[in-house]
Amino acid sequence: MNINHYAVIMAGGVGSRFWPVSRTAHPKQFIDILGTGKTLVQSTFDRFAKIVPKKNIYIITNEIYLDLVHDQLPELTDNQILAEPEMKNTAPCIAYACFKIFSLNPNASIVVAPSDHLILDVETFVYTINSALQLSEHNDCLITLGIKPKHPDTGYGYIKASKEKSTGSFQNVEKFTEKPSQETAKQFLADGSYYWNSGIFVWNALAICKAFEKSARHIYEIFVNGMRYYNTPDEQEFISANYSKCSNISIDYAVMEKADNVYVLPCDFEWSDLGTWSSIYTLADKDSSGNAAIPAEKVVLYDSSNCMVNVPGEKLVILSKLKDYIVAESNNTLLICPKDEEQAVKQFVADVKGRFGAQYI
Amino acid sequence: MNINHYAVIMAGGVGSRFWPVSRTAHPKQFIDILGTGKTLVQSTFDRFAKIVPKKNIYIITNEIYLDLVHDQLPELTDNQILAEPEMKNTAPCIAYACFKIFSLNPNASIVVAPSDHLILDVETFVYTINSALQLSEHNDCLITLGIKPKHPDTGYGYIKASKEKSTGSFQNVEKFTEKPSQETAKQFLADGSYYWNSGIFVWNALAICKAFEKSARHIYEIFVNGMRYYNTPDEQEFISANYSKCSNISIDYAVMEKADNVYVLPCDFEWSDLGTWSSIYTLADKDSSGNAAIPAEKVVLYDSSNCMVNVPGEKLVILSKLKDYIVAESNNTLLICPKDEEQAVKQFVADVKGRFGAQYI
Repeated sequence: MNINHYAVIMAGGVGSRFWPVSRTAHPKQFIDILGTGKTLVQSTFDRFAKIVPKKNIYIITNEIYLDLVHDQLPELTDNQILAEPEMKNTAPCIAYACFKIFSLNPNASIVVAPSDHLILDVETFVYTINSALQLSEHNDCLITLGIKPKHPDTGYGYIKASKEKSTGSFQNVEKFTEKPSQETAKQFLADGSYYWNSGIFVWNALAICKAFEKSARHIYEIFVNGMRYYNTPDEQEFISANYSKCSNISIDYAVMEKADNVYVLPCDFEWSDLGTWSSIYTLADKDSSGNAAIPAEKVVLYDSSNCMVNVPGEKLVILSKLKDYIVAESNNTLLICPKDEEQAVKQFVADVKGRFGAQYI
Repeated sequence: MNINHYAVIMAGGVGSRFWPVSRTAHPKQFIDILGTGKTLVQSTFDRFAKIVPKKNIYIITNEIYLDLVHDQLPELTDNQILAEPEMKNTAPCIAYACFKIFSLNPNASIVVAPSDHLILDVETFVYTINSALQLSEHNDCLITLGIKPKHPDTGYGYIKASKEKSTGSFQNVEKFTEKPSQETAKQFLADGSYYWNSGIFVWNALAICKAFEKSARHIYEIFVNGMRYYNTPDEQEFISANYSKCSNISIDYAVMEKADNVYVLPCDFEWSDLGTWSSIYTLADKDSSGNAAIPAEKVVLYDSSNCMVNVPGEKLVILSKLKDYIVAESNNTLLICPKDEEQAVKQFVADVKGRFGAQYI
């Protein structure tokens, strides 16, 4: 492994679409939501440990999740866990991590990725990230991984690749698009030059710092002023004093959509952002009637089909004559709703917060 | 209150039809299954406390439930709580209690009743039991309360009253019948002389002891031999040594169907043996969509109707688009099944016992 290669895992999100299993106090990335035996952040760490030295893997999370990160990834030193004092979307989060790594090693190449995605074909993933890291070493470019779309998904943003100015399999990006309508998504799929925006980025440390300077000067100035504090005992004090000054903005808006040195690396591995109960259901093991039970040991189903059951492991569940439902429980909260109604979960969460208080969400 | 009037409350049953809420370790009579703030045995005790002196109320239960009885009815002395070493149906249970009371007070009149029934019109109930106790004082008769049937229920046994030999509102019993078919139940209802067998009995102590002597000599001989031990420190040892000799037989089979001095007292108060989830549902408070939630405080329903939710009080439940279902939870076991499928609960219990062991039932 190249000692100049680094990974930044973003683990600060809340994941309320999986309520009640994912909760503010214990969100999705810290849950073994697929019943694999590892939480999502543990699986993400393990994937990157195949690509970069473990000591070069950094986790950035909200300070309220520090204990969860320490518990789930005990190998990490304090310096490898970055605490955001408040949630500020991906641009400030990435700027903090990349400036910190740049101050440590100006020759660093960095892969930045969310902590809560599923990647099934790890071998291809490792190969892909390695080639992106290698390309990034000596090129002033911002690489984003584009997933070859399998269906006209309306839950993802899309990246349109241009055939011009391509570098081997890396293609110049023509534009980023928002989550499309069903009709537009179908056009994207038919067009063939659109990819799902995976939110996984690769660049060298200097390139991303320069990109912030050029496209998001406000954020650049905050973090460049921290260069003398990163990796010192004063780092946290500096962050606590300055992080709240950042605007709440995504890396896509702040940098990627403005920069002219953005490349997409088309990828074809099985990937999901696990953004909905349906995506979990699609990926989970199912019985012959299409029921996915996580964990399955104590779930007994009678004349039921296409249900998604996600309950604590010690719980015994008897389900009779239920079709296409989600049955999810966590922290003494039980949700039973049709699987195709998962968009309503946000409304349930809002209602519960209003009626019973924030401690339930 | 008449100091010769006694009540015996039978509280030894298992109630598996309400699994998982009612469990072997904590059956129905010890649960506040209707959300009234009192368990069924507490409500039964309170009803009889309006009829007989509290010190004359005896509870007979399986010895594994002694702690539950002490906890829920702390007013009772040890001598008022009778422990069955094993479950033996109602005839041995009633013989034990009535011989014990007879040895204490040969002039006793006794009402015997299950602990797990619902009676809504307590005033009428009190009046009815009092008149039966008064009649029993000086008459060698066995009185059973017959409930005027409201519908052709196939879950109850029926008593056919004869107009002959009636004593005021008390009528001689022509015959006891088993749970009928739907067709037969309709005929019973149309006939007008059939009553639901409530399992509530009134007699004087001597009359029931004599009835055992005449109709169930085997049981009589076991318990008459205990006369010198009842209400002494040796009572429990005597019961432990002899109770297992009794045959497993109901009071209806052993005595009532054979005796010729059986009277039925037709009653018209609201009564239910709470034998099925449907009976609980029928009696519970419901919202405008027909949903009964016990307790209701933290159950939130969206587009759901005619559901029966029975969960621990601290549990938050979100139900969406569910119609005519039971959602019941207790001791980390969750049951979701159609309300009209409640007969399947016994099969679920058997399957769970086979797959996961007796500790789950």
